[in-house]
Amino acid sequence: MTRLLADTISLIKPLDAEAMAKARARQDILTKPQGSLGRLEELSIQLAGIQAKPIPRINHKAIITMAADHGVVAEGVSAYPKEVTAQMVYNFLGGGAGINVIARQVGARVIVVDMGVAAELKANPQLLSRKVAYGTRNMALGPAMTDEQAVKAIETGIEIVTAEVAKGLDIVGSGDMGIGNTTASSAICAVMTGRPVTAVTGRGTGIADEQFRHKVTVIERALAVNRPDPKQPLAVLAKVGGFEIGGLAGVMLGAAAHRIPVVIDGFISGAAALIATALSPGLKDFLIAAHVSVEPGHQWVLQHLGLKPLLDLNMRLGEGTGAALGIFLSETATKVLAEMSTFAEAGVSERSETA
Amino acid sequence: MTRLLADTISLIKPLDAEAMAKARARQDILTKPQGSLGRLEELSIQLAGIQAKPIPRINHKAIITMAADHGVVAEGVSAYPKEVTAQMVYNFLGGGAGINVIARQVGARVIVVDMGVAAELKANPQLLSRKVAYGTRNMALGPAMTDEQAVKAIETGIEIVTAEVAKGLDIVGSGDMGIGNTTASSAICAVMTGRPVTAVTGRGTGIADEQFRHKVTVIERALAVNRPDPKQPLAVLAKVGGFEIGGLAGVMLGAAAHRIPVVIDGFISGAAALIATALSPGLKDFLIAAHVSVEPGHQWVLQHLGLKPLLDLNMRLGEGTGAALGIFLSETATKVLAEMSTFAEAGVSERSETA
Repeated sequence: MTRLLADTISLIKPLDAEAMAKARARQDILTKPQGSLGRLEELSIQLAGIQAKPIPRINHKAIITMAADHGVVAEGVSAYPKEVTAQMVYNFLGGGAGINVIARQVGARVIVVDMGVAAELKANPQLLSRKVAYGTRNMALGPAMTDEQAVKAIETGIEIVTAEVAKGLDIVGSGDMGIGNTTASSAICAVMTGRPVTAVTGRGTGIADEQFRHKVTVIERALAVNRPDPKQPLAVLAKVGGFEIGGLAGVMLGAAAHRIPVVIDGFISGAAALIATALSPGLKDFLIAAHVSVEPGHQWVLQHLGLKPLLDLNMRLGEGTGAALGIFLSETATKVLAEMSTFAEAGVSERSETA
Repeated sequence: MTRLLADTISLIKPLDAEAMAKARARQDILTKPQGSLGRLEELSIQLAGIQAKPIPRINHKAIITMAADHGVVAEGVSAYPKEVTAQMVYNFLGGGAGINVIARQVGARVIVVDMGVAAELKANPQLLSRKVAYGTRNMALGPAMTDEQAVKAIETGIEIVTAEVAKGLDIVGSGDMGIGNTTASSAICAVMTGRPVTAVTGRGTGIADEQFRHKVTVIERALAVNRPDPKQPLAVLAKVGGFEIGGLAGVMLGAAAHRIPVVIDGFISGAAALIATALSPGLKDFLIAAHVSVEPGHQWVLQHLGLKPLLDLNMRLGEGTGAALGIFLSETATKVLAEMSTFAEAGVSERSETA
């Protein structure tokens, strides 16, 4: 492990118990029956612990959407051609993708990162070019990347989120784009959760039965060829991962090191979280699961991480679209805690003695 | 049935099938795998049908929060004293309640209505005084209100939402405040869904076991004394309802008559929806269920209405807090449909031939 990664992990500390206790105490004197805002209350308390503030604040919001290509697409695992990864990056830059619309709606900026798209992308001031390589190698034939590339991907994520912190950042959402990346994520999920490949593999962007069975076979072959060991998360990333997955793992670690809450999106972000939390188990407390994806592996990721999703809207787009909705709920939770009147302030009677 | 109510019901027409077909066709050419935004896509199509526009728009948003008192509180069914209803109305007017915070967050105005608070409220330009009476009578001893009062409550709701339409309204959320109103709602729910009282009664603002058993007994007594017939929804409202419940039923009917989508909040709004949809079954298509409340009866309400909640956040505050979150998701759904690029516009390849 290199210096930046090791230092970042060492900076991830426990949640601030005192701030959480104060947030909980305040929730209990706000003008509502105790606990009646349910998960919004819990979320506000978690955010207090992460930010180490009795009344956490969310003003600066960002989604970091990382794109990369996957060599395993050569095996015919996706419904879309791999050119779509680059095309969608241009769509992000043009503001016309799902994540652009939803991020605008929640007031979050979108940071688009080329972590390893298999095409020369036109320079654009809105695009962070951090290509680790022109797509991964085909994991069905050998490791998707070298160990050095795996570390490079994670450290790139750390650097990117650290630069965003310097600009002002109170919460960050993870997002992904990469044709073939549900295949890599299913492989990671099978390794890290110990579930069979069939249980953690889905239809991705929308493949039919026969292609689905083929996808399972390809993932099983990748695992047989590479023999990834769940106790070696960096090697798992190298063998069956992706550059955007590594980058997002780095974003999560870097954010937690700065006490910034991370709203994780769907299945690909979940795979990144499996790698990142294996490197730093304390990271888990800094994660907020936005939603549960239609991809069947995602529920096993969430169970493994001990996270309960906020939303279940049958979404499976990725890009950070679920994370953006989770950011909205997080911000709402902080506003409830900050802005509601207490019983005393509003002159409202508390519970009867008889209750 | 009086003229305004009958006319309103006659104005509720089916959803616009052509607008829905166009919305669906547009969703399928936006730059994402078909269906990958799940319930946001379905919601956009429903909204197209309601507004009769291929691309529905949500600019003007309102929550109508109706307050009233309940005579049945004399039986000791609530954890809070009945004075809290009036105190919370002042809290709404002061901007410090949960609904104020969440409505601000989603950009919705809050219309606070006194439908029958059992206190003389100080005049306030932000308060609509539409008192039907100073609280209902005790339904455990006889009808909660007269038949005329039931119609008056509903027609008041119709008038209020119609006035809001004139000011500009693209979506409306329902909200309630009334100590004792889960008791009335459980009674309505038992009658209209046919479920036993024990299955549809909960802890309200937070009563303990013994008081809960007492609450069930009181509701059973109210049903035995009044013998409400589910085929006579106005009489059900009169016998075991509340003025805010009737008012919200009117809001729903009046909104649907103007093709305005209605986001229903929790259990009390659900009880209002049971009355309103019994008066006009076509109303159902205009309703969006924001969330499922902790109150156990709410799931039976939603099942009876055939509505699937968007959120499940363990909330049970009422006031329209869940509805406000549902308005946010509805607005997001319309923006996705309106603002995302098509494959052609963005130059993104569609699915491979082989897929």
